[in-house]
Amino acid sequence: MTTVRVEVPGQGYDVHVGPGVRHDLGRSVATTTRARRVLVVSQAPVADHWLDDVRDALVAADLVVDVALVEDGEPAKDPAVLARLWDTCARAGLERRDAVVALGGGVVGDLGGFVAATFNRGIDVVQVPTTVLAMVDASVGGKTGIDLVAGKNLVGAIHQPAVVVSDTEVLATLPRRVLREGFGEVVKHALIADPDLLDDLEATAATVVGDAAGHASLVARNVAIKAGFVAADSHEHGIRAHLNLGHTYAHALEALTGYATWWHGEAVAVGTLVALALGEELGLHGPDLRARTATLLGALGLPVAAPVLERDAVLAVMARDKKADGGIRYVVLDAPGSPRVVSPTPEQVGRAIDRVESPDAHEPRGAADLAAEPSAPTAVADTAAPTDLHGRVAAPTARPDRPGATP
Amino acid sequence: MTTVRVEVPGQGYDVHVGPGVRHDLGRSVATTTRARRVLVVSQAPVADHWLDDVRDALVAADLVVDVALVEDGEPAKDPAVLARLWDTCARAGLERRDAVVALGGGVVGDLGGFVAATFNRGIDVVQVPTTVLAMVDASVGGKTGIDLVAGKNLVGAIHQPAVVVSDTEVLATLPRRVLREGFGEVVKHALIADPDLLDDLEATAATVVGDAAGHASLVARNVAIKAGFVAADSHEHGIRAHLNLGHTYAHALEALTGYATWWHGEAVAVGTLVALALGEELGLHGPDLRARTATLLGALGLPVAAPVLERDAVLAVMARDKKADGGIRYVVLDAPGSPRVVSPTPEQVGRAIDRVESPDAHEPRGAADLAAEPSAPTAVADTAAPTDLHGRVAAPTARPDRPGATP
Repeated sequence: MTTVRVEVPGQGYDVHVGPGVRHDLGRSVATTTRARRVLVVSQAPVADHWLDDVRDALVAADLVVDVALVEDGEPAKDPAVLARLWDTCARAGLERRDAVVALGGGVVGDLGGFVAATFNRGIDVVQVPTTVLAMVDASVGGKTGIDLVAGKNLVGAIHQPAVVVSDTEVLATLPRRVLREGFGEVVKHALIADPDLLDDLEATAATVVGDAAGHASLVARNVAIKAGFVAADSHEHGIRAHLNLGHTYAHALEALTGYATWWHGEAVAVGTLVALALGEELGLHGPDLRARTATLLGALGLPVAAPVLERDAVLAVMARDKKADGGIRYVVLDAPGSPRVVSPTPEQVGRAIDRVESPDAHEPRGAADLAAEPSAPTAVADTAAPTDLHGRVAAPTARPDRPGATP
Repeated sequence: MTTVRVEVPGQGYDVHVGPGVRHDLGRSVATTTRARRVLVVSQAPVADHWLDDVRDALVAADLVVDVALVEDGEPAKDPAVLARLWDTCARAGLERRDAVVALGGGVVGDLGGFVAATFNRGIDVVQVPTTVLAMVDASVGGKTGIDLVAGKNLVGAIHQPAVVVSDTEVLATLPRRVLREGFGEVVKHALIADPDLLDDLEATAATVVGDAAGHASLVARNVAIKAGFVAADSHEHGIRAHLNLGHTYAHALEALTGYATWWHGEAVAVGTLVALALGEELGLHGPDLRARTATLLGALGLPVAAPVLERDAVLAVMARDKKADGGIRYVVLDAPGSPRVVSPTPEQVGRAIDRVESPDAHEPRGAADLAAEPSAPTAVADTAAPTDLHGRVAAPTARPDRPGATP
């Protein structure tokens, strides 16, 4: 087990990463909270696999355990579901000292975290992420929230967890597309903060996604990168914005394709290429960096070309992004490990998009390709699940053929 | 105009108190936020009187103004109303830099503050309180929230306002019972922090409630007291608990009488007497302090005896108070200006209640008494409005005979 400390002023916490750490969850909760009762929030596909282990670990630590399973996928991040969970907290008798345990991917982490942020004006949350995306990104940093009809993640709070327990064994049950999607954020981390990781990913690109034995160290390394940004800027006023590399375009792509065809990590992959194209456009670096990154993303099985979208619509979504605050702000690189924020003109952004768009890029990796890969239990259709703005896969209904995919 | 500064680390803000300060609201918003748009949240009885002035002031500062009127009274502090307000924020196009203006009493302040605390993970809120209770207590300190079926204020956040604008002219339209209720918190402030204020209240008890010319200085003095506690302890981990003098019993009284007969400030008045009786019980002071306080409360027109309630039920509510964290914690005094927190036995609390209970105390001040007072526009029935745990009057439906009472 590796433990990464997230140094948030007054609210620091540990992230435990490794195979089997779920069995120590009870001890983790007992040593970081004063909880006597916990409410486990989860979704059926994850709970089917892991709830028994999680409950056993909590009960072994003398905690009284209640469980709330919410609907599958992104629809769970809804005000009505939130209100039911608040009532569940009250009925379960949670007091100010007690805690919520969020067992799942980004949807559950966001929802469970927001319930905890607001019940009794804030109780502890323990994040137990079950996807690569949630482990390397969503579970660290305290972002929580729900969606409105008007947009994803429009309501929320910053609420740091008491502890994060990332059991890399659970990744073994993920379909390959879900697993691979997380590498969009991994490549992003390498580009903004860790050139050595970029080298390592390039050296292992053919095997790293499916290399279960390597997941623990890879996740820990990425958690450390994320933790560094969060520690420097827990409320996203400054350099934490660098974590948004690739996200300005990704958010527009996801929104304009209805959060269905493109999953978040896939959209971040092409969004990162757009950001690198913008860096070229601004004269910050040559085209080699984008070419190198496209080769890596392609080898990881991630998309490397953006679909052709109505340009004004793309620019309009970018301008109203809640992080944009008026004009378009964009994270670009001077070089790997050296990000900066710029305010490009719409024309500059347009020319960058031109370099990445391709009429052949309507959909990320097709079903046939995915079905051929060994770790995918069954074929995964391209038209499957919607994905939110922060990278959590979501399926509208339970799909028994995709165990673990919903988180 | 008097300005009291609330020194919260990193989030300090001004409270402007005085007659007519609503006309400067636009400037207050413009100098403390980066808002270009604001959503005014209010309720009909308050909006009828003050919305035009408030809107004019905001528009004069070049702000784009939208208005959301929510249902009257405590029922507005509901998850469904909250969800509608979130949607309204999105439809109004509020961005991260924009703000909510909460125009009303404690209900609107709590609800509007919580909307602001959570929309876009937190935008500014400007509190414009319209009752004595809200001015001296609820609008300062950042407590926001809504109710659940299981209890009042079970969901919320600490979200400090950008600025508070307390126009004491608006108090002139309040029914006398609403006005007087706020003096329950004023007497509490005097007891925990300002013995001179206690003397002054005793010297002016016959006239102070209706003395409109004196309201500004009285409110400012009380805001300064509250601000001192908030500055010392913005998240209620320590001495801010002293502000709960009288509230442990008050919460039980309100809950067990259905939040109808007893309004919050009235319950705090008798709760304060119970706390003083507990101080006697514990040998901290003699009976004179309680006798003196009862005389003052009675002269202000507030109740001085508690109704006879089922004792086990009272103790059970006290024990599950979300601030209690297990056993019963109680704020008592060593002397005026010297509060402390104790953990009495149920027997000690019971003997203290015995000293304040009276079979003649079923209801606070009757309707006939109220109708006879000059500033009450019409008679106010005893069975009127429910009141929440933090002292905000609430009427289930609009009552044209009680203008301004709903806040």
